[in-house]
Amino acid sequence: MTVNKYIYPFSKGSASMKELLGGKGANLAEMTSIGLSVPPGFTITTEACNEYLRNDETFPAGLLESIEEHILHLEEKTGKKFGGNSNPLLLSIRSGAIVSMPGMMDTILNLGLTENTVEGLAAQTDNPRFAYDSYRRFIQMFGGVVLKMENHEFEDILEKRKKQQGVELDTEMTPESLQGVVDDYLSLVKETTGQDFPQDPKEQLKMSVEAVFSSWNNQRAVTYRKIHKIPDHLGTAVNVQTMVFGNMGDDCGTGVAFTRNPSTGENKLYGEYLINAQGEDVVAGTRTPQPISSLQEEMPTIYREFQDICRRLEEHYQEVQDIEFTVEKGKLYILQTRNGKRTANAAIKIVHDFVTEEIIDKDEALLRIDPEEISQVMHRRIDPEAKLQAIAKGLPASPGAASGVVVFDADKAESMASDGTKVILVRPETTPDDIHGMVAAQGILTSRGGMTSHAAVVARGMGKPCISGCEEAKINLSAREMMTRSGVKIDDGDEITIDGTAGKVYQGQVPMIDPELSDEFQQLLQWADKRRDLGVRANTDTPEDAKKAKELGAAGIGLCRTEHMFFASDRLPVVQDMIMAETKEERKKTLEKLLPFQQEDFEGILEAMDGQPVTIRLLDPPLHEFLPNSEELAVKINTLRLEKADKEEIEEQEALQRKVRALAEFNPMLGLRGCRLGIVYPEIYTMQIRAILQATVSLSKKGLSPMPEIMIPLVGLEEELRINREMVLKVVDEIENDTGIRCDYPIGTMIELPRACLVADDIARYADFFSFGTNDLTQTAFGFSRDDAEGKFLHLYVEDKILEDNPFAVLDRPGVGRLVKMGVSLGRKEKPGLKIGICGEHGGDPNSVEFCHEAGLDYVSCSPFRVPIARLAAAQAKIKENS
Amino acid sequence: MTVNKYIYPFSKGSASMKELLGGKGANLAEMTSIGLSVPPGFTITTEACNEYLRNDETFPAGLLESIEEHILHLEEKTGKKFGGNSNPLLLSIRSGAIVSMPGMMDTILNLGLTENTVEGLAAQTDNPRFAYDSYRRFIQMFGGVVLKMENHEFEDILEKRKKQQGVELDTEMTPESLQGVVDDYLSLVKETTGQDFPQDPKEQLKMSVEAVFSSWNNQRAVTYRKIHKIPDHLGTAVNVQTMVFGNMGDDCGTGVAFTRNPSTGENKLYGEYLINAQGEDVVAGTRTPQPISSLQEEMPTIYREFQDICRRLEEHYQEVQDIEFTVEKGKLYILQTRNGKRTANAAIKIVHDFVTEEIIDKDEALLRIDPEEISQVMHRRIDPEAKLQAIAKGLPASPGAASGVVVFDADKAESMASDGTKVILVRPETTPDDIHGMVAAQGILTSRGGMTSHAAVVARGMGKPCISGCEEAKINLSAREMMTRSGVKIDDGDEITIDGTAGKVYQGQVPMIDPELSDEFQQLLQWADKRRDLGVRANTDTPEDAKKAKELGAAGIGLCRTEHMFFASDRLPVVQDMIMAETKEERKKTLEKLLPFQQEDFEGILEAMDGQPVTIRLLDPPLHEFLPNSEELAVKINTLRLEKADKEEIEEQEALQRKVRALAEFNPMLGLRGCRLGIVYPEIYTMQIRAILQATVSLSKKGLSPMPEIMIPLVGLEEELRINREMVLKVVDEIENDTGIRCDYPIGTMIELPRACLVADDIARYADFFSFGTNDLTQTAFGFSRDDAEGKFLHLYVEDKILEDNPFAVLDRPGVGRLVKMGVSLGRKEKPGLKIGICGEHGGDPNSVEFCHEAGLDYVSCSPFRVPIARLAAAQAKIKENS
Repeated sequence: MTVNKYIYPFSKGSASMKELLGGKGANLAEMTSIGLSVPPGFTITTEACNEYLRNDETFPAGLLESIEEHILHLEEKTGKKFGGNSNPLLLSIRSGAIVSMPGMMDTILNLGLTENTVEGLAAQTDNPRFAYDSYRRFIQMFGGVVLKMENHEFEDILEKRKKQQGVELDTEMTPESLQGVVDDYLSLVKETTGQDFPQDPKEQLKMSVEAVFSSWNNQRAVTYRKIHKIPDHLGTAVNVQTMVFGNMGDDCGTGVAFTRNPSTGENKLYGEYLINAQGEDVVAGTRTPQPISSLQEEMPTIYREFQDICRRLEEHYQEVQDIEFTVEKGKLYILQTRNGKRTANAAIKIVHDFVTEEIIDKDEALLRIDPEEISQVMHRRIDPEAKLQAIAKGLPASPGAASGVVVFDADKAESMASDGTKVILVRPETTPDDIHGMVAAQGILTSRGGMTSHAAVVARGMGKPCISGCEEAKINLSAREMMTRSGVKIDDGDEITIDGTAGKVYQGQVPMIDPELSDEFQQLLQWADKRRDLGVRANTDTPEDAKKAKELGAAGIGLCRTEHMFFASDRLPVVQDMIMAETKEERKKTLEKLLPFQQEDFEGILEAMDGQPVTIRLLDPPLHEFLPNSEELAVKINTLRLEKADKEEIEEQEALQRKVRALAEFNPMLGLRGCRLGIVYPEIYTMQIRAILQATVSLSKKGLSPMPEIMIPLVGLEEELRINREMVLKVVDEIENDTGIRCDYPIGTMIELPRACLVADDIARYADFFSFGTNDLTQTAFGFSRDDAEGKFLHLYVEDKILEDNPFAVLDRPGVGRLVKMGVSLGRKEKPGLKIGICGEHGGDPNSVEFCHEAGLDYVSCSPFRVPIARLAAAQAKIKENS
Repeated sequence: MTVNKYIYPFSKGSASMKELLGGKGANLAEMTSIGLSVPPGFTITTEACNEYLRNDETFPAGLLESIEEHILHLEEKTGKKFGGNSNPLLLSIRSGAIVSMPGMMDTILNLGLTENTVEGLAAQTDNPRFAYDSYRRFIQMFGGVVLKMENHEFEDILEKRKKQQGVELDTEMTPESLQGVVDDYLSLVKETTGQDFPQDPKEQLKMSVEAVFSSWNNQRAVTYRKIHKIPDHLGTAVNVQTMVFGNMGDDCGTGVAFTRNPSTGENKLYGEYLINAQGEDVVAGTRTPQPISSLQEEMPTIYREFQDICRRLEEHYQEVQDIEFTVEKGKLYILQTRNGKRTANAAIKIVHDFVTEEIIDKDEALLRIDPEEISQVMHRRIDPEAKLQAIAKGLPASPGAASGVVVFDADKAESMASDGTKVILVRPETTPDDIHGMVAAQGILTSRGGMTSHAAVVARGMGKPCISGCEEAKINLSAREMMTRSGVKIDDGDEITIDGTAGKVYQGQVPMIDPELSDEFQQLLQWADKRRDLGVRANTDTPEDAKKAKELGAAGIGLCRTEHMFFASDRLPVVQDMIMAETKEERKKTLEKLLPFQQEDFEGILEAMDGQPVTIRLLDPPLHEFLPNSEELAVKINTLRLEKADKEEIEEQEALQRKVRALAEFNPMLGLRGCRLGIVYPEIYTMQIRAILQATVSLSKKGLSPMPEIMIPLVGLEEELRINREMVLKVVDEIENDTGIRCDYPIGTMIELPRACLVADDIARYADFFSFGTNDLTQTAFGFSRDDAEGKFLHLYVEDKILEDNPFAVLDRPGVGRLVKMGVSLGRKEKPGLKIGICGEHGGDPNSVEFCHEAGLDYVSCSPFRVPIARLAAAQAKIKENS
């Protein structure tokens, strides 16, 4: 038998040839090679598909001949004849890309049946009902997927005939009735396409292969690849396989089963089957399939054999399997196996049990879990125990759940959110004009748009729950109301809850639960902890979050932002007074009022993390963030003037306006913030430093072991850090003199500017530690303002593959990564063993965690709910490094 | 004779010991060593000064003894005795830092005179008038500089005595009268200080040396060092020298002279002298000195000897010399020589002539010119031929001249400037709140503040003319007027001209001239051109500027910004329509209206630079820059609403507001601009590309040789350039097909983001050239928004030496420089010989030009008037590299 590069018979391939044979083909070959009972067939390679697509949709030279040659081999093997009037060879045709992909042409069964061969089949099986049923199925599938006809037109014909015969089920139809269906089908094809249904089996086969090839580029497939970042050049393979029949009588059947429960992970066969049916009947829903456990009674031998095969396949693939089988006249055939899709919870239990059952080792188990998949488990979600009635359903565009009051425009969403109200932004669809509202909202609901709509893409980027395309809800913007199909009216200001994981909308606030870690998951994470080199800390600003982080396994706080404490409603007025101060003395006075607040904040968080390091970043944002919006203020003053308000009031507002203008910046990201504040207004930093150290002293006196680390943000110059470090040391001296308690805590810096990476050796001279702020580093390295880029062009960049990933989600290795590596190497050149971490959001992204491991960082720090993800990813990085 | 580390006699030092001996001391030693007639003396080193300052202002151990020892040597050498009643040794004491520094204590003459020695001197010289004159001079100087008394009190006594005697000139005073002056002086000292004038010459000497040392840290000296970036740790030396007397009779005299004219460079002695006088009389202005040429007649032998010495010194130092001399009883003494301060014009002529006279070679000549100094010559200035009357005078805070209408507040300055009006911002003083007004103004005038005031520092940074501390002009902000001391009233909106080089204010617009290059300068630049490797281009946007640049030696345009063309008043409305377009089709229509404008622009500039490359950058700024200010619009709409204006008008403004909001960005520097515009709105770039190519075709048809280079801004990703390049190539194809004329011009990119430097190899794949945009690269590498940083903290950083230089003026080598070098090396690794230039403002800064040479760039591009500076700096870089 000649094997040319376009075709592999099942007996010649293997599981490792997935790229050439597709997932399905490789597994069919693998099963054949381990001796399972797989109907013989062959795979036309992805390479053939790519050639076909490259050549303007024409078959590569020799392919047709080669197909015919392999058909001959099948004929030899089965003793049947393709197009033969007696004992005809029938085929199934299935697409098989490397990754299974909805939207691709899927399956054609019973190919090879014609006016002539159907008679032969009837005679040979002595079962005309079976033969005509097979023929009409073939015409219907071929018509749908190759000839692009509407399926419901075929269904209408079938229904009409059943009605005529007065039966409900297909199985009750007489051969004559089915023959009538076939005749009607053939007429329909002729009418619709203007052509006779092809009566040459070879022509049928060629057309089917072409249809599979072409379906690689149909709209749904292209969109799917875009969303799932599957390269366009992979192509699909085509599997041509000898038919076996589950519909030849009651000693026949067909079914699908998972080797374990794909939803819980329980070690028990999970699936269903139908007696006397073909595969499509199981999913069609016209007959209700039986649970797989019933097969034990109906066909005990077959069941035992199937159980055995399941175990063999699972051990062979070391993964839970999703298996299709057919029983033809008491003989079991395996038609397909693939790794089973399962929930994140199931995945965790399954790999855990595989270790217990000694199918895989712990390292393998750790590598098996996709850390990103775990984030599903880690989202806050609606309490599954709650009895709830959804009022509408849309597309699950971005996972997680959120409650808030409904707001119909972005401006209002922003202003309400700035007053502390939780809002859900509801729009027919969103545009870049709505970004500020999306930023402000807890979640987003749109009535139009799909999974790749602006709302969906942007919300996923922001990690916010989103339901898109919720067409059941009609939005009336001018009336500011939303009416659901079920008749519920939601007004502006009414509270709703959206579940972006399920795509469901609920009225009011519903019970939510925090994510929990199952015992198996805890166990798995402990294995990970033993394996990893990277430490994992959390970014949190409150004692509550700190406690949560500790529960989830954080070994400290890598970033505690002090500005969030400034925004609290009891503090903001004092902060504003401080900013408005005309003199340094006046400012110092207001700062004294803030000191006790800050000290309390720090005591809380240091106590929560007692004995573990807490990296506290000094004030970072520009001061104008704490003042009113300039435009709103200008409008307010304009109104006061036009309405001839009290002169004093106007003057007061004007004084405020002067300050707002004085502090206004063209590009606040690159303005007077971070350590620059410490240099221009040393009194502010001095207050914060004092608050930290007083908090520490107070806890120490209580017998606790607070471990603050003081971090100076936005350093780009050696001198900036030297000056700020001296400021800290001065307060340390004062406090030590006053209290007699030592306060020599580490003083370090964020590395978050390109220049800081380039002169990290100079900066290291004054740093006890580095913490890479990869959010700002990404902004400056790319010249992307995150707030502007994500809504205005970054989603387009990712969609059009100008960028592989959103660099704010996945650390950009060629650019930002290179800067990080320079920073690490220069910093440690100056100060060997310098402690280095990362506290940008990348610290919770598995790919970026891997990078951090490779770059030799000591720890990553991420949001509390990503701590388990980081723990796992850190272990995987270590394992991969060794393998 | 023992030489300890604190003291060097003139006979033991040399010109190379400037660091230890100061400039003056080193030159006195040098002149002594080449045999000139220098009165003997010694130098107390800078090291002694630094020790003194370090030890809380006490003399280092052994210094006093060593001084006494060296006094003994002087006594031996001169046969005179320090404090001796007959033939007393008198000394001059002069400070001598490495760089001469105004504000430092300068000179005390005749030290050693006391009640006793003055009698001895009178007897010895048989000239009591001379003796008492010398004594009263000594008391006056010592009183002023050591005892910190007011000079005018001494002058008052002197004037009173002259009046009593009824004479006008000091030389006419009788010995008795002078003796009376001395008595009055001594009483004044006692009254003012509570102490007798010191009568011990050693005490006089010790106090004087201490005064010199301490003056290193007086306020004026500290400020001077800060402005001129002189390190604080250098310290000053003290020169102690035997007095010679120009005031012993008519065969005596004293003078100062430059070996060449310091203002024109003419090769002719330039200076003045007085017969029978001491040095201070020449500058005091009480007697009018004679021009040096007169000495030829009055003392022909001395004149010839002096001429000879001048030539010897000039040849020895290979520089124009500024010489002090004294004639004592017919003998010529040289008291000091130093390199002469001269204007930039003179400097150019002098080094040119030195080459002609074979004193130095061409390389040395090129190295001699400080390129930064040339910028004086290159500023636009007031026509010196114009007969003008200044209405006020202030400090020349930032050079150059500018005319505009007077505006008294920054907001109005900004809004008027945005309407195209040229304004001069006039304020009592400026604060960071005024930055936007300073940016908008042509020049700045403040009535308060010195050379280091906010206005002065910021204006110099911006390269704008500024007069600070113009106290002659009283500004009344509420009346919005300025009243000069001379009684001229300037109202808001009146036109004035300021000359920041001279500190003078004129009414109305006055004739200005562009800088001109003298023949010698042209010659020098031609020598530079032969020497340099770096090409020099100009950044210009108009045909006029392009012509100017060509005249000044630019070999092409390195940056032609296309957005400036969008702001012209006949185009802005069309540009706004284009931005407001709801659909791509609508936008394309308005773009068609812009096309002829742009084509015309490009034809103009390409024609002006016919045969030389013109790098045209496609649209760079974010679109909202072309729309009205958001805050003003909000206020306008608010007014319309409150005044219940026409509904349609309100709606129209609201539509505009929606667009303004949609396009608004938090950080426009990092937003939707540059090549990102090309990707989001390809129709805009396509129009620009078409305009460029159509312009080229049109000129080609006229027989010209246009050489456009199309430059894509703000590329950070390989894909961005690939996509934009394809856009260009598509239009090239179309135009070539339509016209049959080849259009394969280079397509390149700005490298102005850190990431672009890091992945320059990938980017180079699609680039025919790189041009470093070091303005933006500096902004992103440092995380400094230039607009915000310069007014808010950068001036403070430079003042406090956190940064050595403003990185927007002088390229930051450790950070930005390193990125540039990476960009060059990666770019050329991928594409050997890749043409690389720089078009940030650094292209005109000499230090940065040197860096560009070292980094292997092909050319620099700078503003037209800096082209000569760059040509010279490029040659210097090459020469230094070889030396």
